Amino acid sequence: MAGHFLSFEGIDGSGKSTQARLLADALRARGRSVTLTREPGGSPGAEEIRRLVLEGDPDRWSAETEILLFTAARRDHLEKTIRPALARGDIVITDRFADSTRIYQGITRGDLVATVDRLHDLMIGTEPDLTILVDIDPALGLSRARARAGTELRFEDMGLDTQIRMRAGFLDLAARHARFRLIDGARDADAVAADILATVLPHLG
Amino acid sequence: MAGHFLSFEGIDGSGKSTQARLLADALRARGRSVTLTREPGGSPGAEEIRRLVLEGDPDRWSAETEILLFTAARRDHLEKTIRPALARGDIVITDRFADSTRIYQGITRGDLVATVDRLHDLMIGTEPDLTILVDIDPALGLSRARARAGTELRFEDMGLDTQIRMRAGFLDLAARHARFRLIDGARDADAVAADILATVLPHLG
Repeated sequence: MAGHFLSFEGIDGSGKSTQARLLADALRARGRSVTLTREPGGSPGAEEIRRLVLEGDPDRWSAETEILLFTAARRDHLEKTIRPALARGDIVITDRFADSTRIYQGITRGDLVATVDRLHDLMIGTEPDLTILVDIDPALGLSRARARAGTELRFEDMGLDTQIRMRAGFLDLAARHARFRLIDGARDADAVAADILATVLPHLG
Repeated sequence: MAGHFLSFEGIDGSGKSTQARLLADALRARGRSVTLTREPGGSPGAEEIRRLVLEGDPDRWSAETEILLFTAARRDHLEKTIRPALARGDIVITDRFADSTRIYQGITRGDLVATVDRLHDLMIGTEPDLTILVDIDPALGLSRARARAGTELRFEDMGLDTQIRMRAGFLDLAARHARFRLIDGARDADAVAADILATVLPHLG
């Protein structure tokens, strides 16, 4: 495909969503055409599947059914948003993609990690050209997330221990896949954004 | 598991839904505990996924997204209805299961048949102990379906040619899997039911 496919990954409070937006802004300012999207969701069908997964009793879907539903949502996101944008020549920036599923299942149902990978290979197949991992100390991420209105409860639900394990999972993935770029997120947003832009630009030709 | 898992398959107008019900009645009359279910659907979660797939523009989901959603529904049906009933020692009778998906995709998107099989192996794994294929000449099935109110349009939409190809697909599957029993559906319902009961009873111990 003609475009470039970039993903942002990181734990809560890492600033990855802010950084995805800042990168989109910086690239647009340079005259590039950018599609900024996110998961779960990213297309009307994927948003509907997301609502189906998240509404009602949290235990009403098993982990297996949930990964099938999220893979269906990702497939729709890929077909309806990502691929058409790449075909137009856009730079596609997604806030989370399959790595988030891998890490989440690795923490909550370690026995399903191989299944998640096989399901991805079978039904999605696509990986980003470049994945920006915004890395941050989980305790710092926690204090940042607490400073944000509305996100405190979600973060508290996950717990610091979970965030520590998720960070370790991301760092492990990054060590195993050449598409990852590790960015130190423990600086002010502008410094991080400049670092990310300098990392990304050489890949965009 | 303690119970027995039976499926009914066949083209429209074959009488399989009627026969599934008659078998359930006959087994209950003999004091057996029976769970009669059906696909797509068969559990509250699966019914919700089914509604999501079927509502709105028929083209809004790709074939790939649709098989992921139907596999999610089947996984929920398996976990919430079929497995608990088998664990109780019930005879589970389902009107359609994975074979219907295989046949349907074989007709509409032949290139996806291997994917459907791999997805089934990865996320479902379970096959019925016995599959009753109620076989009927598609022209006879068509005339029966036309005699039923409300089903005419659906049948017409599929077309006789599609039904001929689906029948051939079912007969091919039956020839390749020992769990299939072929039942001649071109007789009155009581004669067919007696034949099915005589076929099934030796397997129930």
